[in-house]
Amino acid sequence: MSQFAMYGKFKAHPGKGGELAQILLEAAEASKADEGCQFYIVNAAEDDLDTIWVTELWRDAEAHAAALKNEGAQAMIKRAMPLIASVEPVKLRPLGGKGLE
Amino acid sequence: MSQFAMYGKFKAHPGKGGELAQILLEAAEASKADEGCQFYIVNAAEDDLDTIWVTELWRDAEAHAAALKNEGAQAMIKRAMPLIASVEPVKLRPLGGKGLE
Repeated sequence: MSQFAMYGKFKAHPGKGGELAQILLEAAEASKADEGCQFYIVNAAEDDLDTIWVTELWRDAEAHAAALKNEGAQAMIKRAMPLIASVEPVKLRPLGGKGLE
Repeated sequence: MSQFAMYGKFKAHPGKGGELAQILLEAAEASKADEGCQFYIVNAAEDDLDTIWVTELWRDAEAHAAALKNEGAQAMIKRAMPLIASVEPVKLRPLGGKGLE
């Protein structure tokens, strides 16, 4: 299986989590047109609304890399950057389970 | 939205990640019969095959709690326990995105 999954942990500056989540939800909306993207789910941590986790599942690592180069994605990254205190990507290899196509 | 998501980070004892992943894949298989479970995906960290992340999405927190009480789940937890060095649950509130029903 060459699918590529990633959890992105975004720590927003204090009080900026909601605004950051909105931008990430726009990115999720844009990903609906990308066949290489299988999931792009935006979550807030239950105990800290300034910690936003994005659950991504891609056909392969190349599809993910290509999406990041997209102009729309670059514009969204620029808007999000000032809101973000830190980012921690967790790269994963999906092994199987329910909900995996 | 009352959906409940969780990332479970399981750190296996050295060399035990594959065995732990197999048990979690059995749990994922069992979850296919549970209508309250929407995703149960087992992943290995790209950089450490002894770190297993489970991506779970449930109809609500109650569906998740009920599944844990199930006899089969309890038996799997017992088998997995000796393989696990640490567990870190990340509780999430899904906000939206692609792949969320």
